Amino acid sequence: MKLTRRVKEILSWYESDNPGTKANLARILMEGRLGGTGKLVILPVDQGFEHGPARSFAMNPAAYDPHYHYQLAIDAGLSAYAAPLGPLEAGAATFAGSIPLILKMNSANSLSRLKEGADQAVTASVDDALRLGCSAIGFTIYPGSDAMFGQYEEIRELSREAKSKGIATVIWSYPRGGDISKKGELALDVDAYAAHMAALLGAHIIKVKLPTADLEQDEARKIYEKHNIPRETLAERVKHITQACFNGRRIVVFSGGAAKGEDAVYEDARAIRDGGGNGSIIGRNAFQRSREDALALLDKLVRIYQNKE
Amino acid sequence: MKLTRRVKEILSWYESDNPGTKANLARILMEGRLGGTGKLVILPVDQGFEHGPARSFAMNPAAYDPHYHYQLAIDAGLSAYAAPLGPLEAGAATFAGSIPLILKMNSANSLSRLKEGADQAVTASVDDALRLGCSAIGFTIYPGSDAMFGQYEEIRELSREAKSKGIATVIWSYPRGGDISKKGELALDVDAYAAHMAALLGAHIIKVKLPTADLEQDEARKIYEKHNIPRETLAERVKHITQACFNGRRIVVFSGGAAKGEDAVYEDARAIRDGGGNGSIIGRNAFQRSREDALALLDKLVRIYQNKE
Amino acid sequence: MKLTRRVKEILSWYESDNPGTKANLARILMEGRLGGTGKLVILPVDQGFEHGPARSFAMNPAAYDPHYHYQLAIDAGLSAYAAPLGPLEAGAATFAGSIPLILKMNSANSLSRLKEGADQAVTASVDDALRLGCSAIGFTIYPGSDAMFGQYEEIRELSREAKSKGIATVIWSYPRGGDISKKGELALDVDAYAAHMAALLGAHIIKVKLPTADLEQDEARKIYEKHNIPRETLAERVKHITQACFNGRRIVVFSGGAAKGEDAVYEDARAIRDGGGNGSIIGRNAFQRSREDALALLDKLVRIYQNKE
Amino acid sequence: MKLTRRVKEILSWYESDNPGTKANLARILMEGRLGGTGKLVILPVDQGFEHGPARSFAMNPAAYDPHYHYQLAIDAGLSAYAAPLGPLEAGAATFAGSIPLILKMNSANSLSRLKEGADQAVTASVDDALRLGCSAIGFTIYPGSDAMFGQYEEIRELSREAKSKGIATVIWSYPRGGDISKKGELALDVDAYAAHMAALLGAHIIKVKLPTADLEQDEARKIYEKHNIPRETLAERVKHITQACFNGRRIVVFSGGAAKGEDAVYEDARAIRDGGGNGSIIGRNAFQRSREDALALLDKLVRIYQNKE
Amino acid sequence: MKLTRRVKEILSWYESDNPGTKANLARILMEGRLGGTGKLVILPVDQGFEHGPARSFAMNPAAYDPHYHYQLAIDAGLSAYAAPLGPLEAGAATFAGSIPLILKMNSANSLSRLKEGADQAVTASVDDALRLGCSAIGFTIYPGSDAMFGQYEEIRELSREAKSKGIATVIWSYPRGGDISKKGELALDVDAYAAHMAALLGAHIIKVKLPTADLEQDEARKIYEKHNIPRETLAERVKHITQACFNGRRIVVFSGGAAKGEDAVYEDARAIRDGGGNGSIIGRNAFQRSREDALALLDKLVRIYQNKE
Repeated sequence: MKLTRRVKEILSWYESDNPGTKANLARILMEGRLGGTGKLVILPVDQGFEHGPARSFAMNPAAYDPHYHYQLAIDAGLSAYAAPLGPLEAGAATFAGSIPLILKMNSANSLSRLKEGADQAVTASVDDALRLGCSAIGFTIYPGSDAMFGQYEEIRELSREAKSKGIATVIWSYPRGGDISKKGELALDVDAYAAHMAALLGAHIIKVKLPTADLEQDEARKIYEKHNIPRETLAERVKHITQACFNGRRIVVFSGGAAKGEDAVYEDARAIRDGGGNGSIIGRNAFQRSREDALALLDKLVRIYQNKE
Repeated sequence: MKLTRRVKEILSWYESDNPGTKANLARILMEGRLGGTGKLVILPVDQGFEHGPARSFAMNPAAYDPHYHYQLAIDAGLSAYAAPLGPLEAGAATFAGSIPLILKMNSANSLSRLKEGADQAVTASVDDALRLGCSAIGFTIYPGSDAMFGQYEEIRELSREAKSKGIATVIWSYPRGGDISKKGELALDVDAYAAHMAALLGAHIIKVKLPTADLEQDEARKIYEKHNIPRETLAERVKHITQACFNGRRIVVFSGGAAKGEDAVYEDARAIRDGGGNGSIIGRNAFQRSREDALALLDKLVRIYQNKE
Repeated sequence: MKLTRRVKEILSWYESDNPGTKANLARILMEGRLGGTGKLVILPVDQGFEHGPARSFAMNPAAYDPHYHYQLAIDAGLSAYAAPLGPLEAGAATFAGSIPLILKMNSANSLSRLKEGADQAVTASVDDALRLGCSAIGFTIYPGSDAMFGQYEEIRELSREAKSKGIATVIWSYPRGGDISKKGELALDVDAYAAHMAALLGAHIIKVKLPTADLEQDEARKIYEKHNIPRETLAERVKHITQACFNGRRIVVFSGGAAKGEDAVYEDARAIRDGGGNGSIIGRNAFQRSREDALALLDKLVRIYQNKE
Repeated sequence: MKLTRRVKEILSWYESDNPGTKANLARILMEGRLGGTGKLVILPVDQGFEHGPARSFAMNPAAYDPHYHYQLAIDAGLSAYAAPLGPLEAGAATFAGSIPLILKMNSANSLSRLKEGADQAVTASVDDALRLGCSAIGFTIYPGSDAMFGQYEEIRELSREAKSKGIATVIWSYPRGGDISKKGELALDVDAYAAHMAALLGAHIIKVKLPTADLEQDEARKIYEKHNIPRETLAERVKHITQACFNGRRIVVFSGGAAKGEDAVYEDARAIRDGGGNGSIIGRNAFQRSREDALALLDKLVRIYQNKE
Repeated sequence: MKLTRRVKEILSWYESDNPGTKANLARILMEGRLGGTGKLVILPVDQGFEHGPARSFAMNPAAYDPHYHYQLAIDAGLSAYAAPLGPLEAGAATFAGSIPLILKMNSANSLSRLKEGADQAVTASVDDALRLGCSAIGFTIYPGSDAMFGQYEEIRELSREAKSKGIATVIWSYPRGGDISKKGELALDVDAYAAHMAALLGAHIIKVKLPTADLEQDEARKIYEKHNIPRETLAERVKHITQACFNGRRIVVFSGGAAKGEDAVYEDARAIRDGGGNGSIIGRNAFQRSREDALALLDKLVRIYQNKE
């Protein structure tokens, strides 16, 4: 499989990684309909941990079956599929080699009263990633939460082990908890800070939410205003996030959030594309639609990243 | 021992497991009077940890002897016998090869003041399971409790080790603690969430309690009502639980709870059968009756799962 | 599965073994048409290592396929199937739980010039036995050969590890090499010595060849003659071998040797039965016949051990 | 990447392997111009160890550079590239993700006076394979040599470790040494025996030389003649080798041997194809030609396996 | 590279260290324009963790790129570059061997509500330092804070491991938290105490802030006044800090603090030089200026330590 010039350029940024880890990044970047473009669309399905089964799948009951998601990601020509241990195990042999896998190592939980910003359990091991043939591990951090420090130490160890065994690291960076206001979780300064922290921790791929134009922290607001950091349009804000990801030296993808209208999804994707982001990680907006609708939506999403829409 | 088509189908769902683990699942599925049907009745005896000896056995003093339970499970033609380390050790040689064993790794405790939802001690090892000839380990989690995260990390490590050594994993998933109301522990949404979490954690066999028609969490209620998820009859609710177990790709059995009338036990079993559940795990309702009554009850239970009653 | 009184008696001889190992012995003793009788017929297929593929399978080409042997052992209702790593791997998932497996850890080799009595390579690990779901490991020793001491040390370590993990040990004991004459390999004194050595090494199941009435060693001959040890009939000689196996406290099975006429096979089996041996381990005489002929032969063999022929 | 039905069928044969190992086999089977057909052409470059640099590369000095071979394999659309540690390290980052890699773990050596059939040093580790992103390890055995037993024990351990970490095993099986005549190394009986041994040892992919119609061992000759095993044409002999590889349940590829005329190379490939072999592993006949000639030769080779020539 | 007499003298102070650790100290002391003088200027860039990306880099956007800082440190002829895991990884190969690296193991964080004096996460490992080719690890302690004891135990382990592997330890010692007043953080007695604690903990290089003439602790004030410890001029105070660093037997460098006017920076440096300190560790005052201005400032700084300004 000849890598494109663009993929080779991206791989060159991960200069301290061993060839095994680079090969797994290459697998993700060369997979599917966006393979070779440097753009990514990833299907993540860890809502089950976060919201329980009915809230995740009742609107599309076929999605109770873990095979459904593997097949959706493959049929839509996506770049990778991310899920916790159990669902990956349930299809890893049937779909071995069919799509790059990201083993989600920890997950949020709405059954606990320790909700916002609380720690997460680490529910899988790097050795699980090896035996299931995963290209990457995925890990969520909550910058700003009281659990943050513990999480950073967990991903330090998991990531160090993964890198030594040729497996890439994806960090989901979601600010919350502590003194951060609900609105502030999406504020540009906080989101950029969160993305930057993932980069500082050594992530290969960074996942954050799309930021609003709000500014949360006083010290940061002064800087944003003094330097007139553009933040009016979503594309401008995406561009700022890519700066926070080592000036574009780290892949950054954006999550779609709760299920919403198709047009909003497309608009987000155009802004990500125009702002220089690397793509979307789109869960509920994909699997909470019927398979037919999801394939249509993902098709258009891919076409947007192909500059065809 | 020729496996039935049904058992082969069930084994095919555990596609990432090594043949050793599959063989142990097969042993459970082919054992006893329900062998080959895909249905299971398991005898669990861990009340001693949970309620102490007198509350567990005074009503049937023969049951103070660990051999009693082995013999009961064998004579009733059950699928497996589950117990903590001590009782298994006390009979494992006498009954070696006579019935598949599940080594219960942790257990609740009513002597501690840390009762509801508190953590449990892990009182056995995977190597104990090997030396005692067990087919599976059993582990209780308390979704919703503050101890949940620690429990998930414990079972992650135990299950990873067990899977590598060809031993299956049974997870008892009992919501409790945190903000969950007493009534909510059995609410359909919470029970389905608990079953789903066990599946996400990589369980081969999931054990939950039978759910009521209640709904506990506001966000979930909206979904259940919006999508009209059927929950009037117990069979409908069982069916929903099987959806939460990867749409039926994971074995799910239901516990009988506290000792109660025979008719209630039979009614439960019929609902489990009609809703597509895989069977019962029935402790107190078996060993807290006289041996004669217990055998009669278990006989009828088996016949229900055989579609004869 | 209720063990028979006879199987419980046999298990009682293995009094230092942990319940896991006893359970695996019980699985072999309770399997198939002879299950529960204390008699065994085992299908071993390691001729590929010893004689190469064509000499092993050309007369029945279906047998080139490893699934063939699993299916043959199951369909004939045998007690266990023994083979090296590769063939077991090739069917271990399809037939998981369908028949007890013995992982042959070393094998002879006719491609080497170091033929008779030379060492063998150990080509599998106890951990392989666990992941493949095997009930026992199998190991060949060459009493009398120059390699004997090294082999004894190998099986010491393998057997110790297997016993700690609940896996039984079968020793193939074939005298050869050193000063033993070709004829002497089957001599009663040498064969009894070989069986005894396997017992001394801690084997749970001992496999030897059927002895002739010859006596090889001068010192031994004096004793056999002085004490008039009966050795005229094959049954008498089998009886003497069982004495060498701790007076019957260890299971001993006899190999059939090269393919030969059916009547000879039956005659051997009757002698083994009448002499108190535990059964046959019959490879070439099974798989080097057509499936139909093999099933007929194995059926009759089983019936002989059932005292029906 | 949707796997073809043929590749899925082939993967189903490796039923005891974890999904990680299956994914790596899938990567090899889906790569390059033959991706998805079940046919393979592999470029191996370990002549440096075996014959030294000048004998290997003087006829095409560009081939002194390890990048040359990576690029050749990629540009020719081959299935995988196999080499020892040093050359893989020299290009693994530049070509990360561009072609599946096989880390050759041991190699022959013509500088030693211990030439024919002597042992080989193991010059790499499974952890090297992980950090370099290799899909498989490769290992050479010399069936018949006095070093055979030691080699079997080495590959047992390497293969067990590789399988647990999701990496496939390729065994080069070259009979030599001991009492095997020079001519006998290629004799059909010996070659089939060698292929069978690799399968018995648990290889996923078996590499042997193309056999002649000769028969080396007296005992084998009787069988080949008695059963009229067809061996006149090369295709017939290839077919026999696939039988020896578990009746086609293991991938088998054939080496081209010393550099020779193009027509001979094509003739070999047609016979491999017609006899049901899985492909060629072609080293000297590729890299000892000019790049232009090699690409032309490999193009035609691929077309033959595509049934276009 | 011949070490100067001065550098040899400094190395002689680290007499319990192994030659590997000494060699890494020598690399730092011999690097750049101050190489050989015993003076150091270090560029630290861990503001991203502490203040987020915009507050750190918006005033000089080129500094979002981790390569910028490597290049700045090299072009300015500095002694070492210090940063957290992610930014070091992003340039460690491009600049391998170009400048000594200090891997910052923990970092402060202004997104957390647990701000002042709270613990920090340890976000890198000594093995990361080895694989990235770092000469030292860097670690921040907060003497006086409630987290102090935990931090001391963390650096105990990290430093022990680093020393055993030949890597030096730099401790950033910043008093804060507990009962220390905001003003007291820079008080001479407290700053000297903090420097001394770093020395007591086994640091090779100690980093503190420049002290004021204030005295914070009553018991200390009595002593300072009784003994007339000179503290009027900054140079006198620096001299007192070097006393606290084992009377000059440990290298001590001073941080510049927040960005400020050039003249203030130069004045500080002259005081450090005149007081016998070893140099400056200057972050924001370097990278928050344009590259041109930063190079001019650093040039003058170096010249001051060269006694040329």
